[in-house]
Amino acid sequence: MEWEILHLLDIFGTAVFAISGVMVAGRHRMDLFGGLVLSFVTALGGGTLRDLLLDETTVFWIEQELYLMVVLVTSIATFYLLRGVSIPRKLFLVFDALGLSVFSVLGAMKGYAVTGSISISLLMGVMTGVAGGMMRDILADDMPLILRREIYATASFFGAAVYIALHIAGILPLPALLLSSIVVLTIRLMAIQRNLSLPVLFLKNSDQG
Amino acid sequence: MEWEILHLLDIFGTAVFAISGVMVAGRHRMDLFGGLVLSFVTALGGGTLRDLLLDETTVFWIEQELYLMVVLVTSIATFYLLRGVSIPRKLFLVFDALGLSVFSVLGAMKGYAVTGSISISLLMGVMTGVAGGMMRDILADDMPLILRREIYATASFFGAAVYIALHIAGILPLPALLLSSIVVLTIRLMAIQRNLSLPVLFLKNSDQG
Amino acid sequence: MEWEILHLLDIFGTAVFAISGVMVAGRHRMDLFGGLVLSFVTALGGGTLRDLLLDETTVFWIEQELYLMVVLVTSIATFYLLRGVSIPRKLFLVFDALGLSVFSVLGAMKGYAVTGSISISLLMGVMTGVAGGMMRDILADDMPLILRREIYATASFFGAAVYIALHIAGILPLPALLLSSIVVLTIRLMAIQRNLSLPVLFLKNSDQG
Repeated sequence: MEWEILHLLDIFGTAVFAISGVMVAGRHRMDLFGGLVLSFVTALGGGTLRDLLLDETTVFWIEQELYLMVVLVTSIATFYLLRGVSIPRKLFLVFDALGLSVFSVLGAMKGYAVTGSISISLLMGVMTGVAGGMMRDILADDMPLILRREIYATASFFGAAVYIALHIAGILPLPALLLSSIVVLTIRLMAIQRNLSLPVLFLKNSDQG
Repeated sequence: MEWEILHLLDIFGTAVFAISGVMVAGRHRMDLFGGLVLSFVTALGGGTLRDLLLDETTVFWIEQELYLMVVLVTSIATFYLLRGVSIPRKLFLVFDALGLSVFSVLGAMKGYAVTGSISISLLMGVMTGVAGGMMRDILADDMPLILRREIYATASFFGAAVYIALHIAGILPLPALLLSSIVVLTIRLMAIQRNLSLPVLFLKNSDQG
Repeated sequence: MEWEILHLLDIFGTAVFAISGVMVAGRHRMDLFGGLVLSFVTALGGGTLRDLLLDETTVFWIEQELYLMVVLVTSIATFYLLRGVSIPRKLFLVFDALGLSVFSVLGAMKGYAVTGSISISLLMGVMTGVAGGMMRDILADDMPLILRREIYATASFFGAAVYIALHIAGILPLPALLLSSIVVLTIRLMAIQRNLSLPVLFLKNSDQG
């Protein structure tokens, strides 16, 4: 039962990131296949990088084809539902935030399960959470969300840290995952709503790079 | 004999993609080494990603150094041949289409041989076909061909699907490969010639992302 | 003792590349987390790619967490030291050149140790040296240094070649590494100072791509 809900969480993250990919494709007026490429990259990119680096298992979507199906069906459905519809920027950010929340925490969980190292789990959490969206933004030639002056990786990092802390404290996976996902989501949504940001590294130099 | 021709097809794909890399480098007025970087990335990128994900074998160009030599010799020769020559955009697209054709089908073949899954083979086909050119375009800061409103990934996808269908129908590898490569090439060249495209996801929103 | 110095060299390369990442983040007015992302990518990207491709060992920074700590501490220190400070472009190029020197040679060493092939070692050297900086530049949407008309990959290549030659000639690792790193650094700094470049592939075509 517990693992089924965990699996559902993973599928949910996959679907919302796939939707965010189609939304970006829409803004750039790409066709269905462009949308599919962005969806696959966003939804599967982070976890693929994590699995390659951990080198423990087969990449998750090769082991379980369900993920490919989820991305495919979600993207095509979104593509047709969104035709001619105006998407507010904030709605896109919310879908991206949902994906970020779930994947940051699941990435930290998998990192800790494989390596048992706190620092590597934190990095795996942030990487799994942000890499897919980063690839999406690079492909679409947008400024990656993570490099904007909004709290983004910070939210991912805190969620991964909360999960690891709860896990070490002996909390069961499911409540630990849900709670830490909510941490990410709350921080990220507050940052979007209030336009919060971290201090910026201001350099006075004006020469171009 | 058959496998020799198959190998020749692979070398051919490597060479034409290497040439497309040098052509892009030329348009951006890069030097020889910039051209070599784009050539290596274009010619080896897709297959490298495929081999990393399938996690079955050593990456192909580490196992067989011949590929490195092919890229090196082709690129340097192209670099010197093209100096001062005007390259029509369509010629570049044709070389790119040739690489796309061969690699999409070979990627699907390898994917099917390793996983036996149709959906994964199709994805591996498209990925092997498009990833090298995508990396080339991102590096050169061009809009990736695959995200333009031209039929591109679609051609790759149909070629991979035709190959899998022929393979399951019991057709020998060589005719199946040649036939499905021709399918990709025909679709892609027609799209270039007639400016065909898929329906676009049109969104009425005007806010910037 | 010798291996400790070799290890120090590696840590040194990691730190200077991390600094170069923060500098780029600063130029783009990113916040601390943006700076950390660029630092990690620059300092660990090349070696990660090398380890994934060689498929021999666990990725180095998963095996030894020291690297993560070095990047983290160096980046945060640099971030706070550089606040409000003007960084001349040449200083950034020097840090980048130091990282390039060390990683090109260490990459060639590891490539040769694993594969025993000269051509693959050369490619691994150049890839380890340039990939991190390339990812940094792509993320920050700068034109990658390697694709500019300055001698960059060329310096990396010659350093890798000198190392392999010295190694085959029976020179001990440490002097071979130091000497070949200095080769890279000298070529690269001269190129920066004198604005040296390789012949450019000039194409007369004016149609856009």
